[in-house]
Amino acid sequence: MPTEEGPISPAELRRRIRANEWTGPLPSPRTVGAAPADSRAYAKMNLVVLPLAVAFDFVLFCQRNARAYAIADITEPGSPVPRLLAPDADVRTDLPRYRVFSRGSIIDEPHDINAYWHADSVAFLIGSSSCFDWALRTAGVQYETLGAYETALPCLPSRCFAGNMVVTARRFASSQDAVRAIQISSRHPAFHGAPVHMGPAQAIGIADLAKPDYPLGTMPAQTASDDTHTLYWGCGILSASLTGSAQIEQLITHYPGRLMVTDRLIAEMAVF
Amino acid sequence: MPTEEGPISPAELRRRIRANEWTGPLPSPRTVGAAPADSRAYAKMNLVVLPLAVAFDFVLFCQRNARAYAIADITEPGSPVPRLLAPDADVRTDLPRYRVFSRGSIIDEPHDINAYWHADSVAFLIGSSSCFDWALRTAGVQYETLGAYETALPCLPSRCFAGNMVVTARRFASSQDAVRAIQISSRHPAFHGAPVHMGPAQAIGIADLAKPDYPLGTMPAQTASDDTHTLYWGCGILSASLTGSAQIEQLITHYPGRLMVTDRLIAEMAVF
Repeated sequence: MPTEEGPISPAELRRRIRANEWTGPLPSPRTVGAAPADSRAYAKMNLVVLPLAVAFDFVLFCQRNARAYAIADITEPGSPVPRLLAPDADVRTDLPRYRVFSRGSIIDEPHDINAYWHADSVAFLIGSSSCFDWALRTAGVQYETLGAYETALPCLPSRCFAGNMVVTARRFASSQDAVRAIQISSRHPAFHGAPVHMGPAQAIGIADLAKPDYPLGTMPAQTASDDTHTLYWGCGILSASLTGSAQIEQLITHYPGRLMVTDRLIAEMAVF
Repeated sequence: MPTEEGPISPAELRRRIRANEWTGPLPSPRTVGAAPADSRAYAKMNLVVLPLAVAFDFVLFCQRNARAYAIADITEPGSPVPRLLAPDADVRTDLPRYRVFSRGSIIDEPHDINAYWHADSVAFLIGSSSCFDWALRTAGVQYETLGAYETALPCLPSRCFAGNMVVTARRFASSQDAVRAIQISSRHPAFHGAPVHMGPAQAIGIADLAKPDYPLGTMPAQTASDDTHTLYWGCGILSASLTGSAQIEQLITHYPGRLMVTDRLIAEMAVF
């Protein structure tokens, strides 16, 4: 769609998603927003919806593990409006697809969650790696995303939530690219901030980088050269090891790749 | 004390406070920590203790107004341990003095809050301007702190909490000092981040800069020159206009100037 008619605004994209005219993965940042598209790329967000009864526990967990789960907005209980990020949006309808869990099992993957929304529902909008990748690419950093992995790095637990960190791994073409990536990611704490590890994958419990637990993009064809560097960032995927989710009557997330586009520019959310 | 015997560790300072051997304002950052004192200055924190029933509302309020209230740690309900900032500390005893409010009125100003601590008490540790001032001074920025002021800038409300922003005003000796202050504060989102206003005080509802609502430090004797600039940052003081606090059975804060010293370096908490 966007390639045919040029960039569209976040509000217009959300309107089409709400009307079920757009149900696939979001278009790339380059195609959402006014020209020049690259500098008007809008932040996209992961979604987690929980009952108010465990909302504080989840806030605690995210606050303690902010490199994976940086909360950018929290709705009032019962209100579907993410006021800070998109005051005319509705988190129940404005993502292309959702996943509904009950006590840890997927029970539905609908295109809206009106039927699952309750007076005590609270939505958390959490920074996505797609924004971080945009920042790296915009700066001309050369790298490939290897995938996302379950690790042996424990998250700091909070009440009913505990588990290991999920990380995304990126292989950089040179020392200079890796250094630049550390600088750029540090400016973006809303989208994971600085890396949590650099060096051997085994040191954080990843057995084989060629076998990601959550494949993202394409695996690199070439082998590593002497000056490639692999860096690891916290990731917003709720780990399969996460306790707590199994005890929750209803937990809703976005369907993988089907995020919410906001009215905030990625560049605007940088520290400076 | 510290001037006589040299720098002491945060843990030792907290131990003395706990033993009521130190009840005054905290020593300056330069005198807490190992040499070289300047580079080992430790972060200090504002404290707010609330019942769990309103903890989520307060998180919402802080998250929406993070330039005033950046939460650096939240204790488990009932636990007095700020795990992220000082895992061997106890927020009930490790600040020199407290203020206990009941429905908006001060009812006690004790040296510990053991008698007021309940199984549902939650403590919030909130970044303090004292750290931010350390960062500015360490960089050699020339300025004077004018004080803290109630403004007409509304905070974003959340549930039972609403009110106007309190700001601290600083007058910088030159354009270059003001520019440097914006750069440095941007690196420190844990301590208010970038300024919220620059220019005339009247534009944000401050009638007279010479009459701060909350005096801090000393007022400058000289008048402003052509190249002085006044900048305003969000402030962690709970505004007198804050609704919500009046409805809360018990709210505890630190006594002004009696903060909690943490094990985290101020420099370590910078974005980079």
